[in-house]
Amino acid sequence: MKSLIDILDLTVEELDELIATAQDIIANPQKYAEACRGLKLASLFFEPSTRTRMSFEAAMYELGGNVISVTGAGTSSAAKGESVADTAKTVSCYTDIIAIRHPKEGAAYVTAKNATIPVINAGDGGHCHPTQTLADLLTIWREKGRFTNLTIGVCGDLKFGRTVHSLINAMSRYEGNKFVLISPEELKVPSYVKKDVLQQKHIPYVQTTDLMAVMPELDILYMTRVQRERFFNEEDYLRLKDSYILTVDKLKTAKPDLAILHPLPRVNEISVAVDDDPRACYFKQVLNGKYMRMALILKLLKEAGKLN
Amino acid sequence: MKSLIDILDLTVEELDELIATAQDIIANPQKYAEACRGLKLASLFFEPSTRTRMSFEAAMYELGGNVISVTGAGTSSAAKGESVADTAKTVSCYTDIIAIRHPKEGAAYVTAKNATIPVINAGDGGHCHPTQTLADLLTIWREKGRFTNLTIGVCGDLKFGRTVHSLINAMSRYEGNKFVLISPEELKVPSYVKKDVLQQKHIPYVQTTDLMAVMPELDILYMTRVQRERFFNEEDYLRLKDSYILTVDKLKTAKPDLAILHPLPRVNEISVAVDDDPRACYFKQVLNGKYMRMALILKLLKEAGKLN
Amino acid sequence: MKSLIDILDLTVEELDELIATAQDIIANPQKYAEACRGLKLASLFFEPSTRTRMSFEAAMYELGGNVISVTGAGTSSAAKGESVADTAKTVSCYTDIIAIRHPKEGAAYVTAKNATIPVINAGDGGHCHPTQTLADLLTIWREKGRFTNLTIGVCGDLKFGRTVHSLINAMSRYEGNKFVLISPEELKVPSYVKKDVLQQKHIPYVQTTDLMAVMPELDILYMTRVQRERFFNEEDYLRLKDSYILTVDKLKTAKPDLAILHPLPRVNEISVAVDDDPRACYFKQVLNGKYMRMALILKLLKEAGKLN
Repeated sequence: MKSLIDILDLTVEELDELIATAQDIIANPQKYAEACRGLKLASLFFEPSTRTRMSFEAAMYELGGNVISVTGAGTSSAAKGESVADTAKTVSCYTDIIAIRHPKEGAAYVTAKNATIPVINAGDGGHCHPTQTLADLLTIWREKGRFTNLTIGVCGDLKFGRTVHSLINAMSRYEGNKFVLISPEELKVPSYVKKDVLQQKHIPYVQTTDLMAVMPELDILYMTRVQRERFFNEEDYLRLKDSYILTVDKLKTAKPDLAILHPLPRVNEISVAVDDDPRACYFKQVLNGKYMRMALILKLLKEAGKLN
Repeated sequence: MKSLIDILDLTVEELDELIATAQDIIANPQKYAEACRGLKLASLFFEPSTRTRMSFEAAMYELGGNVISVTGAGTSSAAKGESVADTAKTVSCYTDIIAIRHPKEGAAYVTAKNATIPVINAGDGGHCHPTQTLADLLTIWREKGRFTNLTIGVCGDLKFGRTVHSLINAMSRYEGNKFVLISPEELKVPSYVKKDVLQQKHIPYVQTTDLMAVMPELDILYMTRVQRERFFNEEDYLRLKDSYILTVDKLKTAKPDLAILHPLPRVNEISVAVDDDPRACYFKQVLNGKYMRMALILKLLKEAGKLN
Repeated sequence: MKSLIDILDLTVEELDELIATAQDIIANPQKYAEACRGLKLASLFFEPSTRTRMSFEAAMYELGGNVISVTGAGTSSAAKGESVADTAKTVSCYTDIIAIRHPKEGAAYVTAKNATIPVINAGDGGHCHPTQTLADLLTIWREKGRFTNLTIGVCGDLKFGRTVHSLINAMSRYEGNKFVLISPEELKVPSYVKKDVLQQKHIPYVQTTDLMAVMPELDILYMTRVQRERFFNEEDYLRLKDSYILTVDKLKTAKPDLAILHPLPRVNEISVAVDDDPRACYFKQVLNGKYMRMALILKLLKEAGKLN
């Protein structure tokens, strides 16, 4: 592997290795503090995503490396008509690894095809966002100690939410897991996810509109944001955005060791009062995202021969 | 103290300590060149202020640290509906100290309440801008050798100019000072500043519209910019913006050791010809601002247990 | 020399020295990896140019220095009415060297006049862009081993293309060179370049509209982009933009050791298929630009007494 475009680019073994590296970084940060001295990350955010950008840049700095940051709707070069391929070749002359966020699906893939350095997809349109899934996975690992035999509830916008699709993809590779898909009718998991992933792999799942009915059986509850920009009309958004809000009260029937995840930013899907519940893991997830990005940067730079 | 939101968050003793640290940094920069190695400043400028941002970032780099910079009218997360509180919690996962500039009054305070790392208010609306006051104070200290028994003229926009209010607050804590408040009628110091600060502490002051009449008695002359954005109509701005322009000629009756300060940027409140006068201290003030920010970053990181 | 505004600010001897330094950097990067430790580049891009900005920032990082980056149509200070002169003085308090890109001709010069640190012109309007020419020259040197007795074709927009004018200026100082100026009638080299440079120095040149007719004699072929923003009407742009597109087929009659250069970004002036031809040097040129910027930063910081 040279680049990471989709979470499934990683084998189960590679994922294990990243989890192990991340845990070693957490235990011994000083060991890694100069690992990337003299190397540079190109942080190309052609679509704004401050949180993800900060996570990548913090990761590179904690490895002792440097960052060149490009933000904005398009680079000036793109505005002048330059192709993504030429941008990839040029940026390869200036830096050692690229993290790219782009509104167009496939942009990260084209960048990886043309760059001579490793490329990490930091989100391309509604398609993939594999480092978010890495954050989710490390959080599950640290909270549960396993990737198997878990009942995983995913709740909210399951139609457009790419992080949900990636998580289902990733967790479907482990044994004994069961999915509980909780959403309004309008925002159900697309049938291709159900057919191509869940049914093909014989993963048990249920679909429901009733969060409370399934709450007691969940080991993981993955909440998602209902994004205004995904809706075709404002009326639908307003009607559905408050569905499935997680409150302290709703958590009364949940398991004592439930792990509540959310990719953030949240609007009001989770009441602020839930933050004080020890089962709330979404800010831990932010930290875990940084550690997994550190592990990933190290792995890709090593494979590219830039590190020993 | 964990964060700095308002200049009065600092005791007189803490201020003395910052002044002493800044002077040691000036004398021995090499001693501090690696002090913050491995630590990161989040430079969050939700309102543009290139000068202040550069000062904070230069300060962190001269301490050997790194910087993650966020600029623009709102982060993408804020645009997606995230609260300031959640942003504070998230940024705390990525960095070690925050400098925040925000158009809304109170935003820095809310950030400090929710962050798990120290927060420095780099300006919130028309409210506070304490690190500008730190720059002013170090300049007064280095030029005058004391904070007491000074006749301090403040001139220009005394109504909206937050740096003036902070300076009055800060210098009112020392003995023997006298204020000369020089402005057009429309831009006089608000009565709450006069009542709550000057009168309550029995600080002598005079109000005047005539800069020349008071020039000979001043030890400090603090000029301010008449900001277009503070006016409700263009006509008032145009009529008043050229009042109280400082020229070489007007300085003829001034003391030979007057110190002329200005928070910058200037438009035309001070004639460029004044720059060559040894009494012009406003570019020294820029440098002093960097040193005080260095001292402040060190102090807050130490108190947060991030530094020895 | 304290600053670099125009390529002709450099003597032939200084250019030789920069070329020699760049080649030493290429051969021994580790020798330079900490050369600028503790120093800061102000990367001021008041006009967007991501590629040039990245090149400067990569250069500074590869020298072990830090970067403070300012991008956007104007700084907030400029928006508040600050002069370029005051900005220059202020930035001098925060950093050690400035790279400035500005839409106004002369802005870099005014900055250099007022700054107390070295200034590098990273492009000012249609005027000068000397570090692009440094990239071009190192490429010619590395490909040809000499600056003399070369037949240099320049093709495309020779009227507005400032990089072409600078290259002609720079290469006219060496003996035995000949220029072949290839463009449509509408985009010919301005007469002042022909009179003041080529004719005055008795440099042989030909003007032609026919790329194929002159192809066999060229040692260098410098292609340029036909920029939409340089045209007064859309119709002229559309008619001319595809003139003089370089293809694999057109290269059949070219010398086997032709060096094809382009300042990038390209739109379609050079077919992507040409990229695989060993004579295509434009991505090497990108790399060479970084090395020459490193050499230049070192030279200017040394002359400013900031480096030994």
